[in-house]
Amino acid sequence: MALINENFLKLKAGYLFPEIARRVKAFTEGNPEAAQRLIRCGIGDVTEALPEAVRYAMHEAVDELGNRSTFKGYGPEQGYDFLRNAIADNDYKARGLPIEADEIFISDGSKCDTGNILDIFGQGNTIAITDPVYPVYVDTNVMIGNTGEADENGAYAGLVYLKCTPENGFVPDIPQEKADLIYLCYPNNPTGAVATRPQLEAWVKYARENGSVLLYDAAYEAFIQDPTIPHSIFEIEGARDCAIEFRSFSKNGGFTGVRCAYVVIPKSLMGRKKNGEAQALHPLWSRRHSTKFNGASYIVQKGAEALYTDEGKSQTKALIEHYMGNAALLVEACKNAGLSVFGGVNAPYVWVGCPAGLTSWQMFDKMLNEANVVITPGSGFGSAGEGYFRISAFNSRANVEEVCRRIAALK
Amino acid sequence: MALINENFLKLKAGYLFPEIARRVKAFTEGNPEAAQRLIRCGIGDVTEALPEAVRYAMHEAVDELGNRSTFKGYGPEQGYDFLRNAIADNDYKARGLPIEADEIFISDGSKCDTGNILDIFGQGNTIAITDPVYPVYVDTNVMIGNTGEADENGAYAGLVYLKCTPENGFVPDIPQEKADLIYLCYPNNPTGAVATRPQLEAWVKYARENGSVLLYDAAYEAFIQDPTIPHSIFEIEGARDCAIEFRSFSKNGGFTGVRCAYVVIPKSLMGRKKNGEAQALHPLWSRRHSTKFNGASYIVQKGAEALYTDEGKSQTKALIEHYMGNAALLVEACKNAGLSVFGGVNAPYVWVGCPAGLTSWQMFDKMLNEANVVITPGSGFGSAGEGYFRISAFNSRANVEEVCRRIAALK
Repeated sequence: MALINENFLKLKAGYLFPEIARRVKAFTEGNPEAAQRLIRCGIGDVTEALPEAVRYAMHEAVDELGNRSTFKGYGPEQGYDFLRNAIADNDYKARGLPIEADEIFISDGSKCDTGNILDIFGQGNTIAITDPVYPVYVDTNVMIGNTGEADENGAYAGLVYLKCTPENGFVPDIPQEKADLIYLCYPNNPTGAVATRPQLEAWVKYARENGSVLLYDAAYEAFIQDPTIPHSIFEIEGARDCAIEFRSFSKNGGFTGVRCAYVVIPKSLMGRKKNGEAQALHPLWSRRHSTKFNGASYIVQKGAEALYTDEGKSQTKALIEHYMGNAALLVEACKNAGLSVFGGVNAPYVWVGCPAGLTSWQMFDKMLNEANVVITPGSGFGSAGEGYFRISAFNSRANVEEVCRRIAALK
Repeated sequence: MALINENFLKLKAGYLFPEIARRVKAFTEGNPEAAQRLIRCGIGDVTEALPEAVRYAMHEAVDELGNRSTFKGYGPEQGYDFLRNAIADNDYKARGLPIEADEIFISDGSKCDTGNILDIFGQGNTIAITDPVYPVYVDTNVMIGNTGEADENGAYAGLVYLKCTPENGFVPDIPQEKADLIYLCYPNNPTGAVATRPQLEAWVKYARENGSVLLYDAAYEAFIQDPTIPHSIFEIEGARDCAIEFRSFSKNGGFTGVRCAYVVIPKSLMGRKKNGEAQALHPLWSRRHSTKFNGASYIVQKGAEALYTDEGKSQTKALIEHYMGNAALLVEACKNAGLSVFGGVNAPYVWVGCPAGLTSWQMFDKMLNEANVVITPGSGFGSAGEGYFRISAFNSRANVEEVCRRIAALK
């Protein structure tokens, strides 16, 4: 009798995006004319064309596979050296950060990486997440058995929820209790907040004192405009001993459909056996990667490498400027409408307080029905997201300008 | 204190391919002239150019991403309908098999799929594997805690090893004991054996009687020449209630560096909760796929779709004929050399008995030193592989002809 993993049954049916889809569908079916005007600012998916440098490199890679003398079969599971070196040189060494190419593991996406990383950790760890939060961190912990059941608000027993509010700038205070694994995501999805250097220093200090590991998701680092804000956790002294960093080409290079990301695990980072003995995490992840993954597509890795050429950097910069220009317009429009606004300055997400008296879902319905704009209700990211909504800046300029006009016209 | 998953420490250091690499390196460094003559028939990686139809489709897909009106961001995690439908129509419905498109999950590789599938199963299942076996099945079970420690032969406590020998045609006998998850791979890696319809019927009967799930790896089905041999477990009546099938484009389409595969989980397939209640596996895998995966690359999925066009089918057929022509030459050469030979008729692997008195590794060294040919020692696939070696037919015709001449010249 094949036993199932009953932890899956604790999961709340992915209520957020399916519920959004259900309401949007009902609206468009009932209002075919308004449906023509619908603008989607819900899901955080890029919209603009893939950089030319990337396309050129991928065309070349496809042609290489068409010739047996340049054909590539299985590549190294951890990624090709050409890409690991480009990342180490550009994202780390050029910033003076001590990360070597063989501490970088190429993958097909940060969603996979942030979920799969739990494979190398044992049972019995206390897991801390921010609230609101990217739901994947929570759900993957539920699946692997690191939580109990959910309560009526969707909060799972056993998880430590770190509240993010305007008072702490949406960067959680250092907790009193001990946590073993702490997920931090800055620039933040969904709030658009960034963590300052002193805030990250406090987290690194906490992690080192407690033997914790920070799971630092920097998927949006390219959107940082403020030169004082760290792009990498490894800008903080001591982080090599307590942090894993997740990076992605999805949002800077427009790779959401192309699929490429990477994880950095310093060789000096240690976990512990139950008997207290230290064990390096790098070889565990390397073994996992070799055994349960066969490398990212060669074509895709060649495309990612092209992001580090002069043309690639300039085309990425233009994409970032486009989306951040959108974000600035949205911030301005929401402020002018008298709403309290967060994020949107160093991140492509604008986090907006609902007008007095409206819940997240009520605001969702109002935006859908009155403005014909799809946003994301904050409560979908956790109970501390109630009273907020997220607007994504990933769109065309024309659509964003139209969204701004409709926000201004909201009653 | 972040606890590690100590199951990883039970793993034998990936001893097979690293050890091969070590010996090959030592040989080539010590014998620079002979190194020029080295022919690699070890790893099962394709060597010939990617089909033109695939390259054409991928070029088109890259160009689509260069235009914002045809740009594709996140796709459906389970795969695009165009590919799921092409698979359902061509691989199943055209053969009269009752598999629907929404029972097919597209991924970036069968290694990932056969490893990740364990996520949806619980603890306490008895796992059966064949011996010899593709090492990934074993190692992923070790990692997730389904085994005890390994003994001196590398056999893990708690696993049921199903011996495959010339006497049973390298298809294991139905065991006396109960197993909950059974890995079967036909055409087989490494032995090149195929399972007949009556043999598979017996396994389906066993699985249905015991509530077991067959994990059926059909990555090499395209190489089957004998029309009586099933290509899919779903050719067996009742398999929809007891089997998951893994398929890959790696070996038929030459996708080892491109990365695309799929899993079939019938909606009628049930696992059990500890209290005995039935629970469909399809929604569990669907949830896992949505939460820990973000879909295979759009470009790659367009390439895979092209394998199902008339041009794609004809180009795939030519690749298969090429590799199976190689296999026939290798079988003939080994027979002429007086060796006992298995496989190579419906599979791209030739499984050869070592000359009397030689172990697998001794034969490896003999082939390396005397013939300058890299093969894979059978004992690397499990203790029942001792006394055999595997030759891969994935190579150019010229290289294979040269390997045959060297086998003939062996002393």
